[in-house]
Amino acid sequence: MNVSQLISKKRDSHALSADEIQFLVNGFTEGKIPDYQMSAFAMAVFCRGMNFDETTALTRAMMESGRVLKWKTGGSGVPPVNRSEKGRRDAYPTIRNFYCDKHSTGGIGDKISLVLAPLVASCGVRVPMISGRGLGHTGGTLDKLESIPRFKTNLPVAKFQGIVDKVGCAIIGQTADLCPADKKLYALRDVTATVPSLPLIVSSIMSKKLAEGLDGLVLDVKWGSGAFMKTVADAETLAEAMVAVGKLMDKKCCALITDMNQPLGRTAGNALEVEETIEVFNGERIDDVLEVTMALGSEMLVMAGVASSSEAAHAMLNEKLLSGAALKKFAEMIRAQGGNDDVMENPRKLPRAKKTDALKSRKDGFIQAVDTERLGWAAISLGAGRKVATDTVDHAVGFSGIRKIGECVKRGEPLLTLHSNGTRGLTEAAHLAETAFLIGEDRIEPLPLTVEKID
Amino acid sequence: MNVSQLISKKRDSHALSADEIQFLVNGFTEGKIPDYQMSAFAMAVFCRGMNFDETTALTRAMMESGRVLKWKTGGSGVPPVNRSEKGRRDAYPTIRNFYCDKHSTGGIGDKISLVLAPLVASCGVRVPMISGRGLGHTGGTLDKLESIPRFKTNLPVAKFQGIVDKVGCAIIGQTADLCPADKKLYALRDVTATVPSLPLIVSSIMSKKLAEGLDGLVLDVKWGSGAFMKTVADAETLAEAMVAVGKLMDKKCCALITDMNQPLGRTAGNALEVEETIEVFNGERIDDVLEVTMALGSEMLVMAGVASSSEAAHAMLNEKLLSGAALKKFAEMIRAQGGNDDVMENPRKLPRAKKTDALKSRKDGFIQAVDTERLGWAAISLGAGRKVATDTVDHAVGFSGIRKIGECVKRGEPLLTLHSNGTRGLTEAAHLAETAFLIGEDRIEPLPLTVEKID
Repeated sequence: MNVSQLISKKRDSHALSADEIQFLVNGFTEGKIPDYQMSAFAMAVFCRGMNFDETTALTRAMMESGRVLKWKTGGSGVPPVNRSEKGRRDAYPTIRNFYCDKHSTGGIGDKISLVLAPLVASCGVRVPMISGRGLGHTGGTLDKLESIPRFKTNLPVAKFQGIVDKVGCAIIGQTADLCPADKKLYALRDVTATVPSLPLIVSSIMSKKLAEGLDGLVLDVKWGSGAFMKTVADAETLAEAMVAVGKLMDKKCCALITDMNQPLGRTAGNALEVEETIEVFNGERIDDVLEVTMALGSEMLVMAGVASSSEAAHAMLNEKLLSGAALKKFAEMIRAQGGNDDVMENPRKLPRAKKTDALKSRKDGFIQAVDTERLGWAAISLGAGRKVATDTVDHAVGFSGIRKIGECVKRGEPLLTLHSNGTRGLTEAAHLAETAFLIGEDRIEPLPLTVEKID
Repeated sequence: MNVSQLISKKRDSHALSADEIQFLVNGFTEGKIPDYQMSAFAMAVFCRGMNFDETTALTRAMMESGRVLKWKTGGSGVPPVNRSEKGRRDAYPTIRNFYCDKHSTGGIGDKISLVLAPLVASCGVRVPMISGRGLGHTGGTLDKLESIPRFKTNLPVAKFQGIVDKVGCAIIGQTADLCPADKKLYALRDVTATVPSLPLIVSSIMSKKLAEGLDGLVLDVKWGSGAFMKTVADAETLAEAMVAVGKLMDKKCCALITDMNQPLGRTAGNALEVEETIEVFNGERIDDVLEVTMALGSEMLVMAGVASSSEAAHAMLNEKLLSGAALKKFAEMIRAQGGNDDVMENPRKLPRAKKTDALKSRKDGFIQAVDTERLGWAAISLGAGRKVATDTVDHAVGFSGIRKIGECVKRGEPLLTLHSNGTRGLTEAAHLAETAFLIGEDRIEPLPLTVEKID
């Protein structure tokens, strides 16, 4: 096959075959196809798109460019023939586990994974979660977990798999041997203006997730002012493409379109979000974090066959929260990954910022809208995330007590509390945060948290 | 300026400013912008296009990436203020020359430049022609001239300029210091499927031509089975863009759309075409080569102000042909470029192929069409051109006695004569050539040679 001809084919809006896509991905990963050809191809894909079959072939080729996890008791380790034989599966209930993960497209204050993984694991579903760091204005699960003293996110795969099979869940970062094609292509896309391409986004996400050797995947596709997808329509398009690719790769797959027009919960910032997570586990909070967690967890339990209906799943999840089983699972995971689980009892052992300042409302009224991306950049200004890859993250900084859409504020009352160390970005953060809130005379109802399910 | 942002801008179909385009071209030429960003940009240009202002900015930036010729007695060496002052120009008639070139988009049997440059120079217009080699299925002027023993096409610029100002014309190849940006970009486009992009084609052609420091440029944009533009509409689009860019760069510029649905003249192949050129100079041929040469030459003379009308120009060109002045000028140019002008008197001194074979018609009828590109590839199979850049050209091989559309052939009569050395590509060439001719019962009129003028 000739690389130029394949680029021409995509350039002229034709669909590539799976073999052609595999040839490109393998050649690029092995260094036989130079960057300048791959970036021209990526731009052709950006401009001309890809159908679901092509996107699936791209996902598969990137997934197979590296290691794909095998699980002894389920997931991709079990031959497909056994999976469909319900009789056999039931005959070995103790050794046939369902491996299921959740992926979120990213937002502000999104600590769902921290609650969800232990909660779903406590219901008997295996959750092998390979997660990411903050991207753009969004926060990252790994950064949040690393605010727990000594918690390790860079475990070797064998250790990760051992924890998943012993504890039920584990959360680590990308390893070098998973999806090397995606790493190389993403780095190239980043400098060639080819990041925001639907098929490239879908294949990047799905290849990394499916390399976990899953039986099923639930997607949390966020829309709104703090999401990458600013409209429901864009979120739907992305969700439909990811679900289609998941199914074409013989995985159980569905997506919930959820609201990101304001931060999830009341905190944004790594240690602050872990502290809020513990409050959710402790039943101290009945709010949006819990609602989205329940919605996603319910999908995972039904998908895994652990619950027969959404209602049954909700009941099971509630029971695990109330009984403390979910919290216990979180503590167990923290210990297994080397972290200090004393923070569960005593959140003051988490990193604390030296200084707190209330960001006061300048007028009376109702919070009508939040420019959530702006709030994300404000947190990054304080050091809660990275502007460039080499920046270090300050786990202690961020926001707490974030007021929500529909709430009434009086002049002088705090809209949120800024947690900062030194003066790093404080003025910029305060300015960004203040201008992120729209306060008006009329009370606005917040939008529904879950817009729809796509499967 | 940020390269990724500029790529995004084009990717999202916005027009770039002249400064932005210059930043990209300069950065790329200096090696500051890597190939992988420039190829993504080129693909974005392919997919989204460029308006005439952008294409002009790209042309100018590429032209100015290297040396732009200056002429002491006209061309770009004379300040614009003098050019528009007719009174002053007339006051110095002997030192104010008009520098004018012709560019053809390429075809088969196209020996026009060989006749045109000396003919127009013999009328007092300076023709500084920097030409190319065969591209794809087409022949190249330099390859044709190099079939003349000892003729040099790689002269230094100073020598080239000296010949132009002494003889009136010279034809050389690209030099390293002219348009380095175009050389680098073309090499990248060649391997990233970004060659057939209108703004990239236009800027590549126009930057190289205008680096000659011209006052005017006449374009021969070919359409048909042997051209790169297979339809009149495509040829018009290209011609309009080139003429627009030429005018936006303050040059006199026009284009003729001419027919390339069959080879020009009766020969294709380097020495064979030089021999045919000499026949044209000697008045032995009144045919399509002469007609297209007269049409283009007439435009050049009128543009230069040497003739006041097309009729006057035709008369002047005819006179220079009949008097032998044009032939003398050709001999003078050959000598000045180190070539043996004995070939003018004795064309047998040109390289001759060892073997000739008649390609016989298999049926009676009229030639109705010629797949001219196929005939081009047939000539290349024999060695008349290059399949890859490293191929050597055999100047002796090719076709003579090519029969033309509308002519009657009888079974067993030659459609053309193949000139070959050894067996290189002979079978392939014979097969390609034979299947290039469509012979039918009805006589077809050949299409008009000149479709229209665009200015």
